[in-house]
Amino acid sequence: MNENSRALDAVIIAVGSELLTTSRIDTNSLYISGVLNELGIPVSYKAVVGDDRRELGAQFAHALARHAVVILTGGLGPTDDDLTRDVVAAHFRLAMHEDASIVEAMQQRFAARGWKMPEVNRRQAQVPEGAVVLANPNGTAPGLWIERDGAYVALLPGPPREMKPMMDGEVRKRLAPAAGAIKLLRRQIRIAGRGESAVEEMVQPVYSRWLGQTQPIETTILAGLGQVELHLSLRTSDIAAGAASLDAAVAQIQDVMAMDIVSIDGVSLEATVGELLKARGWRIAMGESCTGGMATALLTDIAGSSAYVDRTIVAYSNDAKIELLGVPASLIETHGAVSEAVAEAMALGARDRSRVEVGVGITGIAGPGGGSPEKPVGTVCIAAVAGASTRVRTLRFPGGRDMVRSLSVTAALDTLRRMLLES
Amino acid sequence: MNENSRALDAVIIAVGSELLTTSRIDTNSLYISGVLNELGIPVSYKAVVGDDRRELGAQFAHALARHAVVILTGGLGPTDDDLTRDVVAAHFRLAMHEDASIVEAMQQRFAARGWKMPEVNRRQAQVPEGAVVLANPNGTAPGLWIERDGAYVALLPGPPREMKPMMDGEVRKRLAPAAGAIKLLRRQIRIAGRGESAVEEMVQPVYSRWLGQTQPIETTILAGLGQVELHLSLRTSDIAAGAASLDAAVAQIQDVMAMDIVSIDGVSLEATVGELLKARGWRIAMGESCTGGMATALLTDIAGSSAYVDRTIVAYSNDAKIELLGVPASLIETHGAVSEAVAEAMALGARDRSRVEVGVGITGIAGPGGGSPEKPVGTVCIAAVAGASTRVRTLRFPGGRDMVRSLSVTAALDTLRRMLLES
Repeated sequence: MNENSRALDAVIIAVGSELLTTSRIDTNSLYISGVLNELGIPVSYKAVVGDDRRELGAQFAHALARHAVVILTGGLGPTDDDLTRDVVAAHFRLAMHEDASIVEAMQQRFAARGWKMPEVNRRQAQVPEGAVVLANPNGTAPGLWIERDGAYVALLPGPPREMKPMMDGEVRKRLAPAAGAIKLLRRQIRIAGRGESAVEEMVQPVYSRWLGQTQPIETTILAGLGQVELHLSLRTSDIAAGAASLDAAVAQIQDVMAMDIVSIDGVSLEATVGELLKARGWRIAMGESCTGGMATALLTDIAGSSAYVDRTIVAYSNDAKIELLGVPASLIETHGAVSEAVAEAMALGARDRSRVEVGVGITGIAGPGGGSPEKPVGTVCIAAVAGASTRVRTLRFPGGRDMVRSLSVTAALDTLRRMLLES
Repeated sequence: MNENSRALDAVIIAVGSELLTTSRIDTNSLYISGVLNELGIPVSYKAVVGDDRRELGAQFAHALARHAVVILTGGLGPTDDDLTRDVVAAHFRLAMHEDASIVEAMQQRFAARGWKMPEVNRRQAQVPEGAVVLANPNGTAPGLWIERDGAYVALLPGPPREMKPMMDGEVRKRLAPAAGAIKLLRRQIRIAGRGESAVEEMVQPVYSRWLGQTQPIETTILAGLGQVELHLSLRTSDIAAGAASLDAAVAQIQDVMAMDIVSIDGVSLEATVGELLKARGWRIAMGESCTGGMATALLTDIAGSSAYVDRTIVAYSNDAKIELLGVPASLIETHGAVSEAVAEAMALGARDRSRVEVGVGITGIAGPGGGSPEKPVGTVCIAAVAGASTRVRTLRFPGGRDMVRSLSVTAALDTLRRMLLES
C-alpha cells in the first residue's frame, strides 16, 4: 500500500467470541466511527470476529489489502484466547519482545490493590518490534500503534472505558496529520406521509443535479415506519463552502417535498408536533382506541410535554368511547366503531370535554382478529380537530398488529402536524 | 468449496451505509445468529458493509472463500443504492431476469392501499438465474435463496419485521437438512423485580452444580430495564436427554427465584399479566400519569387484549386526575400529585368508574424537571387494586426520562402480576 496512492479510509474489527452470540453486540465501533468521521476518515466496513487465530488473520489481511487504517478492539487480555497482538505481529512478520516498563506498570497497578500480578499478565507486555505502546490508565492492557507499508493500525482494548480515551487521545493524535483537511459534513431530513419509493421518485431529479457539482453530495434514503429519512453528506476541506452547498441542497429538497418534510435537522415527528403546539400555546387531548396509548406515550416522550399534553382516553371498549368521549351510541351502531364519524366524535369529545384547543381521535382494526371484507385488518380512521379545522382520514395499513399500530401513530401525529401548520 | 469437506459454518453480512454511521447498529445479526445456533451452525464472523458495490463484492467473496453459509440482510430495496442482488448475481455470474409473479404481488400490495406501484420497484423483481424467491408477506422486497458450488446463500430484507419471519421460516427450512446432528437447546427465564447482581448472587450456587455434568449447561445473564433474563443452553446430539437436563436446571432456578420468575418459556411480562387476567375473567382499567400511556400501549401489544383491557385515562394534568379518575383535589393538595395516596385513588377511580375488576394507578416524576429534595426525579408511586387486595409502592428509579418511564411501566405490570398471582 502506497501512502499517497489514495484517500485514507478505515476498517474497524471488533474481536471477541462473545460478540458473535445472540446477546452481545459490538457498540465500540459507534464511538470509533465518530472519532474517524470527525477526522474526515470514512469507515469502509466493520467486522466482528471471534477469538480464532485463522479467522482473525484472514480478516486482518482482507482489511489491509485495500484500506489504509485498521482499528482493532478487543483480544488484548492476558488469556490464551486473546490473540489480537499475535495475529497482527504475525501478519507483518514482526518479532515480539517483552516491554519491561509495561510489566512494571502492571505490577504497580496490582500492588496498589494489594495483589500480586498473575504471571499470565506478562502476555500483555508483549510488544511487536517497531510498535508504539499506548498507555492505558483505565486497565492493564496497553494499546498498540503500528505504522507500516503506508498503513496505520491501532490495537485497542475491548472494554469501552479503556478503549474510548485511547481512541480519542492517542489514536486521534496520530491519525490527524495523516487524515488531512477533508472532513465529512452531514444533513438529515425527515419526511412523513410518503413511502420510500415515492420519495425516491420525487427527489431523484434533484439528486442528479448534485452529482455534477465540484463537491458531489452523497445521499442515503432510509425508510422507517411511516417515515423516510434522507441523509445528505459531503466531503470537503472547505467547511464553509461545503455547509453552504448542503444548505442549498436541503432547500432544493424542501422545494420538492414541501409539507411532507417534518424537519431538516433530525428533529423527530413527536418533537415537531410538540413545538407546533407550544408555539400556538395550545393543549391537546386524545381519544385512542387501536393504538392503546402509543400516540400519547410518544408525545410525552418529550421532556416538557406536560406544557401541552392534557389527557388521553384510551377507549378500548365501546362503553369507554360513549362514557368518556361522548361518542353517541347510535353513531357506533350506524357506522361501526371503526369509522370516520366515530374518529371525529372521539377527537371532538376529547377536546371539548377537556376544554383544550386540539383533539385527536384514532380508531382502527390492528388485528389479527376483528377484520371484515369491508373493513379489513389494517383499516384505521384518524381525526384531528382544532378551532374550526377538521381533518379526517381513513387509511389501510399493511402488516401485522405491531406495524398497523405504529403506522397509525405516525399517521395520526403527521395529520395533526399538517393541520397545525395550516392553522 | 466442496460440500462435504467441512462442517457448515456461517458468515452474516449486514448491508447499508446507515449501519456505518455513529447512530445505527446492525441488530439483525443477533436474530439470525439465534436461528443458526438452533440449527447447530456456528457463526464464524459478521461484517457490516455500506452501499458500495466494490466493497460488498470483496466482502462477499471473502466470506464464500472459506464458509459454506452466507446470510446477507439489507440492500434489497428498490433504489439505486440497493446493490445486494446485483453483487451476488455478479459474483456467481448469474444472469438476472424480471419475475412477473413478484411484479404482480407488488402491484397488488400497492393497489390494496389505493396506490400505483412506482416503476422503480421493478428492480425488486429482478431474480438471478437459478435463485429461489422467498416470499415476503411483510414488505415488497422478496428474499432470495441460492445454492451453488456447495454454498448456501440467503439474501434477506433489512427491516427486522420482514427479515425475521423469512429467516425463521424459509431459510431455516432450507438449512436444516444440511446442518449436522448437534443442536443447541435453550431455555429462557424471565425475572422481574430484582437487579442483575442480586439475581447473579442467588443463582450462582445453582450454576456451579451444572458445570460438572456430562452435558455442561452454559448460562448467560442479561439485564434489561427492570427485568433480567437467564439464558441456559446446551449443545448435544441427544435431544431428549438434553431437554431433560435443561428442564431440571430450570426447576432448580424456580426453587431459588420463586415469585420473581415471570416466565420460564420467554413469555413477556405483558403477556403473562394478560394470561392471569384472562384466566380470572377480569377486566382492567388504568390511570397513568408520568408513563403517558406506555403501560397500556404495552398491555395492548398483545393480540386479543381487548378481552381484558377496558380503558385507560392518561391523566397528565391534575384536572384530568380529578375529573376523570375522581381523585379528590384535597388529596393532591395534601400529599402532592406524586404520592401513594393519589396513586391508590387513581387505581380505585379507574376501576370503579369503569365498573371493572382491576385498577392500576401510576404517578411519578420522570424528569428532567419537576423534582424536589423530598421527591427527586425518578420518584414513582404505583398502586394496583383488585377485590379487597391493594398494593401500593413508592420507587426511586435512576437514569433519565426514558429510563424512569420504562422502569415505571415494568414495576407497575410486575406489581399487578404479583397481586394477581396471590388473589
